[in-house]
Amino acid sequence: MAEEIDQRVLAQAIDDIVASYALHGNINHLDGANLPSRALVSGLLEDLLSIAFPGYFVEDEVDALTCRYFVGERCVRVLRRLEQVAARAFSSAGTESAASNNARAQQLALDVVREIPRLRELLDTDVQAALAGDPAAASASEIIMSYPGVEAIAVHRIASCLHRWGLPLIPRMMTELVHRQTGIDIHPGASVGHSFFIDHGTGVVIGETTIIGNRVKLYQGVTLGALSVTGVRRSKRKRHPTIEDDVTIYAGATILGGDTVIGAGSIVGGNVWLTHGVPPGTTVMLDKPSLRFIAAEP
Amino acid sequence: MAEEIDQRVLAQAIDDIVASYALHGNINHLDGANLPSRALVSGLLEDLLSIAFPGYFVEDEVDALTCRYFVGERCVRVLRRLEQVAARAFSSAGTESAASNNARAQQLALDVVREIPRLRELLDTDVQAALAGDPAAASASEIIMSYPGVEAIAVHRIASCLHRWGLPLIPRMMTELVHRQTGIDIHPGASVGHSFFIDHGTGVVIGETTIIGNRVKLYQGVTLGALSVTGVRRSKRKRHPTIEDDVTIYAGATILGGDTVIGAGSIVGGNVWLTHGVPPGTTVMLDKPSLRFIAAEP
Amino acid sequence: MAEEIDQRVLAQAIDDIVASYALHGNINHLDGANLPSRALVSGLLEDLLSIAFPGYFVEDEVDALTCRYFVGERCVRVLRRLEQVAARAFSSAGTESAASNNARAQQLALDVVREIPRLRELLDTDVQAALAGDPAAASASEIIMSYPGVEAIAVHRIASCLHRWGLPLIPRMMTELVHRQTGIDIHPGASVGHSFFIDHGTGVVIGETTIIGNRVKLYQGVTLGALSVTGVRRSKRKRHPTIEDDVTIYAGATILGGDTVIGAGSIVGGNVWLTHGVPPGTTVMLDKPSLRFIAAEP
Amino acid sequence: MAEEIDQRVLAQAIDDIVASYALHGNINHLDGANLPSRALVSGLLEDLLSIAFPGYFVEDEVDALTCRYFVGERCVRVLRRLEQVAARAFSSAGTESAASNNARAQQLALDVVREIPRLRELLDTDVQAALAGDPAAASASEIIMSYPGVEAIAVHRIASCLHRWGLPLIPRMMTELVHRQTGIDIHPGASVGHSFFIDHGTGVVIGETTIIGNRVKLYQGVTLGALSVTGVRRSKRKRHPTIEDDVTIYAGATILGGDTVIGAGSIVGGNVWLTHGVPPGTTVMLDKPSLRFIAAEP
Amino acid sequence: MAEEIDQRVLAQAIDDIVASYALHGNINHLDGANLPSRALVSGLLEDLLSIAFPGYFVEDEVDALTCRYFVGERCVRVLRRLEQVAARAFSSAGTESAASNNARAQQLALDVVREIPRLRELLDTDVQAALAGDPAAASASEIIMSYPGVEAIAVHRIASCLHRWGLPLIPRMMTELVHRQTGIDIHPGASVGHSFFIDHGTGVVIGETTIIGNRVKLYQGVTLGALSVTGVRRSKRKRHPTIEDDVTIYAGATILGGDTVIGAGSIVGGNVWLTHGVPPGTTVMLDKPSLRFIAAEP
Amino acid sequence: MAEEIDQRVLAQAIDDIVASYALHGNINHLDGANLPSRALVSGLLEDLLSIAFPGYFVEDEVDALTCRYFVGERCVRVLRRLEQVAARAFSSAGTESAASNNARAQQLALDVVREIPRLRELLDTDVQAALAGDPAAASASEIIMSYPGVEAIAVHRIASCLHRWGLPLIPRMMTELVHRQTGIDIHPGASVGHSFFIDHGTGVVIGETTIIGNRVKLYQGVTLGALSVTGVRRSKRKRHPTIEDDVTIYAGATILGGDTVIGAGSIVGGNVWLTHGVPPGTTVMLDKPSLRFIAAEP
Repeated sequence: MAEEIDQRVLAQAIDDIVASYALHGNINHLDGANLPSRALVSGLLEDLLSIAFPGYFVEDEVDALTCRYFVGERCVRVLRRLEQVAARAFSSAGTESAASNNARAQQLALDVVREIPRLRELLDTDVQAALAGDPAAASASEIIMSYPGVEAIAVHRIASCLHRWGLPLIPRMMTELVHRQTGIDIHPGASVGHSFFIDHGTGVVIGETTIIGNRVKLYQGVTLGALSVTGVRRSKRKRHPTIEDDVTIYAGATILGGDTVIGAGSIVGGNVWLTHGVPPGTTVMLDKPSLRFIAAEP
Repeated sequence: MAEEIDQRVLAQAIDDIVASYALHGNINHLDGANLPSRALVSGLLEDLLSIAFPGYFVEDEVDALTCRYFVGERCVRVLRRLEQVAARAFSSAGTESAASNNARAQQLALDVVREIPRLRELLDTDVQAALAGDPAAASASEIIMSYPGVEAIAVHRIASCLHRWGLPLIPRMMTELVHRQTGIDIHPGASVGHSFFIDHGTGVVIGETTIIGNRVKLYQGVTLGALSVTGVRRSKRKRHPTIEDDVTIYAGATILGGDTVIGAGSIVGGNVWLTHGVPPGTTVMLDKPSLRFIAAEP
Repeated sequence: MAEEIDQRVLAQAIDDIVASYALHGNINHLDGANLPSRALVSGLLEDLLSIAFPGYFVEDEVDALTCRYFVGERCVRVLRRLEQVAARAFSSAGTESAASNNARAQQLALDVVREIPRLRELLDTDVQAALAGDPAAASASEIIMSYPGVEAIAVHRIASCLHRWGLPLIPRMMTELVHRQTGIDIHPGASVGHSFFIDHGTGVVIGETTIIGNRVKLYQGVTLGALSVTGVRRSKRKRHPTIEDDVTIYAGATILGGDTVIGAGSIVGGNVWLTHGVPPGTTVMLDKPSLRFIAAEP
Repeated sequence: MAEEIDQRVLAQAIDDIVASYALHGNINHLDGANLPSRALVSGLLEDLLSIAFPGYFVEDEVDALTCRYFVGERCVRVLRRLEQVAARAFSSAGTESAASNNARAQQLALDVVREIPRLRELLDTDVQAALAGDPAAASASEIIMSYPGVEAIAVHRIASCLHRWGLPLIPRMMTELVHRQTGIDIHPGASVGHSFFIDHGTGVVIGETTIIGNRVKLYQGVTLGALSVTGVRRSKRKRHPTIEDDVTIYAGATILGGDTVIGAGSIVGGNVWLTHGVPPGTTVMLDKPSLRFIAAEP
Repeated sequence: MAEEIDQRVLAQAIDDIVASYALHGNINHLDGANLPSRALVSGLLEDLLSIAFPGYFVEDEVDALTCRYFVGERCVRVLRRLEQVAARAFSSAGTESAASNNARAQQLALDVVREIPRLRELLDTDVQAALAGDPAAASASEIIMSYPGVEAIAVHRIASCLHRWGLPLIPRMMTELVHRQTGIDIHPGASVGHSFFIDHGTGVVIGETTIIGNRVKLYQGVTLGALSVTGVRRSKRKRHPTIEDDVTIYAGATILGGDTVIGAGSIVGGNVWLTHGVPPGTTVMLDKPSLRFIAAEP
Repeated sequence: MAEEIDQRVLAQAIDDIVASYALHGNINHLDGANLPSRALVSGLLEDLLSIAFPGYFVEDEVDALTCRYFVGERCVRVLRRLEQVAARAFSSAGTESAASNNARAQQLALDVVREIPRLRELLDTDVQAALAGDPAAASASEIIMSYPGVEAIAVHRIASCLHRWGLPLIPRMMTELVHRQTGIDIHPGASVGHSFFIDHGTGVVIGETTIIGNRVKLYQGVTLGALSVTGVRRSKRKRHPTIEDDVTIYAGATILGGDTVIGAGSIVGGNVWLTHGVPPGTTVMLDKPSLRFIAAEP
């Protein structure tokens, strides 16, 4: 290579890139506080999931004899990693002192570990909902190991805690990591009841101010979104719908708007497009789809 | 860290997690047989794909001189890994003796290796269908290396064999692994003819009892699903549609129901929603979509 | 294992696979030029993204003192890797001499490095569009680290250069790699203006001959596709729509056809299906969706 | 490559190698029980050393808050790995049933974990001996992190337990692993008292039936060996010397023979060659070395 | 860090290093042919040893059913890697054309693979010699897995072939790699008969023109060296001793000189220093070592 | 496993280990400052060697076009890593404030980078000395890639700087790392002139207060040591010999004592044992070794 590329051309190209860091500084992160690393956040999620579903996501066998030590060692790792990424997230977002950010980060890390039993209680209801809801599901093992919805919900429940407790940046990184894996995009701000089931899941989008009740079931491609976003930048106004208990929403349905309430026990059919609420117990479906049928020529 | 976290608080938190393993045992896997590991199943798929498409998915060059040794060594690895994960899957699902499970696992592993030539025959038709069906495709190489549909179909064909031969858990783990990669979710129970082509593919869902003929073509977001799942838990009733030979289904179409048969040679337009069948040769499309056009103010 | 599997059965199975390589040679790559490796193309993209967004995607801290060396070392790696994969791609596609392919590959690699400042200028507009367009976005950092659309667009802009400059195979491998991560599938042939924003993104498909203006905004599940592909194989005819400046297209909308032009400033509502253009400033939406509401029984 | 190597030549070469496996079966291990893997034994030693010297040989911080969990998790890993390699070692050596070998292996693994406090007690005396014995040593940290003798002794003390408890193969693999690192070769059969110090250490050899008292100090290149090995194959006769308490042996000294006893408190000078014992308190040194001095020509 | 280090100081330091590359070009390798990589040579040795001692040095089980595929795949890898490093070594050393170097490299790689059965025949004699010679050795497995001498001899036998066949650089890299592991330094030019055994081995040095007969046994610290090296630079004169059949040389003995012949069946005692030969059947030992004994004060 | 091991037995074993941390706290490192990690120190050495000998120890090609960027990026990494391990070493050893330790660490890291050209100047003389001194050496490449002495000296020269500049712990960790690789143990406190050559090297020991002149040559097993260490603990008294310019010391020689001066141009023969100095130009050798020759029985 050396013979043909002129050293000055390469040096100039590199100078131009460095110069563009000054020119377009908005997309650099050169001199601020260190950002939380995506790899670290990803490892943190793996540890939390391996504690929440012991025996499923680790190579080593975990049994009654050994689970205490497995849990203890993972919790310590979670504490350390979460403390580190949380401190970075607080300092990249805020104006508090380093000492204050570190103290908040440490407290938050401990709170997450203490929250795990409650998370497991919820996740148990989610797995049972999947088992009840999908005739193709053969066992809890199959669901935990091969249903993307379970992983997406588990990560949401973790991210949601962190979001409620005021941690910036990390909860969104977590939900985006699981979005990449599953195609399911749940904003950490969304509030989700127990026994939640998402089947297949690719393309599901659940917005920041969505409220979802208990025993709700969604299929792939469902959007729970905002009607229009003009002029509401960063307001905390409710922009996404409320789904009450025991609602089922079939594939591809779109439900929009902060005042839209889908009443308890309703069923929303596939591809339905709703910008207003329905009373409890309503079934909404596409009415005789306007299709044109052209028969084959004889 | 040590200064500020109280040892007893941490010990209590860990005790609470261990206690929750007894309380919510449904989502643990602590004392049963070892489950097949996701990493092992993933490595198995990689090996099978590298045998099926030699020269594409491995770093090392494979040529006519050396392919015999490459194939031999990979087949041995497939035999060993498949035997191991299959034995675990049989023992986690069933009540047979360990010896009987191991014998079944060994036979099944050998059968898979012997099935590879037939799989390749089918995959060749799939690649040719992609080449014929997408004007943007420049070569078989481009298709094998950059079309998610080809990978999803290849994995489905492997998982489908294992499913037909009675292996639990593993086929679903395989199809979920490729679902994560491609956004294409084909249940291993679905039956798929030759020359199958899925373009783009994100959001495609094909249910457990679907039957697909030869030379069928699907676009992204197509659902071949069930109408309603109430009360059919784990029955073997046909719940998903039948797509006959030479059917094309455009993006976002939804076809539901076990009795729904799309006749040979039909075309189903984008976003169409069908819960009943159409005769052979039918073209179905959204009839003049009910749109409202609001012109800009002058 | 050895006791029970017959050596001859295994040897026969391996022979049959090798024989199938002769029989179905279309899906082998045994004796041609080496193909570019997917792992290498993936590493190349990582390096390019780490140069484009310094400080975001690498573990090591990059600051004003050190960024020159970071950039220099990465650019050299990009030059070498891109030269290698480009030479393979040219030789697998074409009929030029090895020397000529190598010279083209080297020139192209240098051109990419020199293009990075212009890429950064565009990417800066994209990040700003995201920040302006999503009320849930808290900072540029959050967008760069957790918005799949930004990554998909960045990779598209890189792949698009390479495609315009005549490099086969690699651009499609790049866009497929980011498609797997994000569910967003943009053909490298598509032309995209500045300040482009895709929110959520799962299921977005943008075809080869699409033209997109400035300040365009898309949501998940939008298809910009072809009407019908019969008989146009590999023609360079425009088959995909033109989206003019300042258009917003909501989730699930489908816009098809090479002559379809969405006029500047238009808004296309969710799930809308359009096969013809609209004048500038038009708002198109599903007109009172034909839904059937069935109230709960009293 | 393919063009020039004849397929038949390669196939013949491979056949010849496989044929040589039948011909020279003594150096194959093809059909017996699986052997313990060197990588596993090496990982086992790493875990044991990280428990014995907490805070020194692991990347993660271990502190008073977290050491219990660190220790618990490592002990479980030691139990599992040791059980596995021990079962393989018993079965490759012996004629017991698999069940009996597994039971012995499990008991032995637990015994090793229970022995760790006693090992640490001894290792503490060894580190203190090094600190006292080397004027260049600045701290216990420096000794634990940079004295090869400490590592060699620690591994010997572990291997020696396993050897005493009847485990074949593994103890020798362990001492050979540390021999490669340090150049210090101590047979697991050797018996070593407390406060043992080896300085520099390269070339030290300590034979199988050596007995070493307390507070003994050795320098590099010391051999404690057998006089002659004819006709004693595998007898358990004592073939190597006895070194009583408080003996110092300088670099390059050689002491041979099973009846050779170096009395307590003796000092053996560098390069001394001894095949018989000396009474307590003796100093032995090379007497005015027979050197020839040739002055430079004037 | 950025705040305190001056950019110009760092830039100057880097400039000075680059300038020193021009000034002290003897220890750079910047613009010549690529050198063979140490990692590649190391991997090559691992593969060759795993073929020579199947079942010992690989994690995967190799059995009679599968060894043919294991061997075939490893041989192909050896062919490719050896061809690559050999071509680099020829081109870094010589003046032949690239084509000629590549052809030599390819032929040599194939010759090595074809030599493996003969190597195994010799290695079998070496392992048997160890088993016969060390009363502490319990089995062939123990010797192969934990005797450094066996590994050093095996690597020497491979390196010696390559050296005889005229390959520069690589044989020395190989013997140095095993020297680091074992402390045994055998020059690839040395000629070694069958049934060779080195016990313990640390510090053994065997020079370039040494000739060693059959059934020779060495202990740690033995030097077979040159008397004086003045003025013989790169001559091919014999500078190192000849050791005839059935000689045993004990620890620390030094035998020097190209005309020094140790006659068949001789025994050279520990620490003996010989610069001339002895007739067959001689036993040489340190005669009553000139020691001074100082008794403890009463 | 779980069935047979009693939970309480395991818990008790773990408790006992944790208790032993309190009891034998001398060999823990639980609550002090973090120690420098061995892996980090090892990576630091690799980077420094790859800058000192560019083109030899890295996989990537480094050429005149690219070496500036390679050097810059590695220097930044060296700065960061050295700063980190140095700060830990200062804080584990000393009583200064964290801020003061960090400032010293930063300055020292920069000084090391600025010292590299001078190090290269010395290393060039060492490689030339090896080329001149060993008739078996074919090229500078062979020496740099396969002579352990060159690596040991290079690491010593780096460690020696750090030691002179007052850095605790790290220099000894560095020399011990290369001791493990090469069997050559040079204390960082030793002072070594230019053109230093160590051949073979296993077993060489050079003590803390040794002074070595220019153009000195050592063979394997040479000890430059202290006479006796009683009562001099940690004094800075000179305890090891002085070797003047142009001295050659053959294998196995031992030279002891702080007042022992080997005059310029002297030659010390193999296995010689010296506790006093010799004037310049002296040749010292074992005078007619006292051997006993026993002829074979006729």
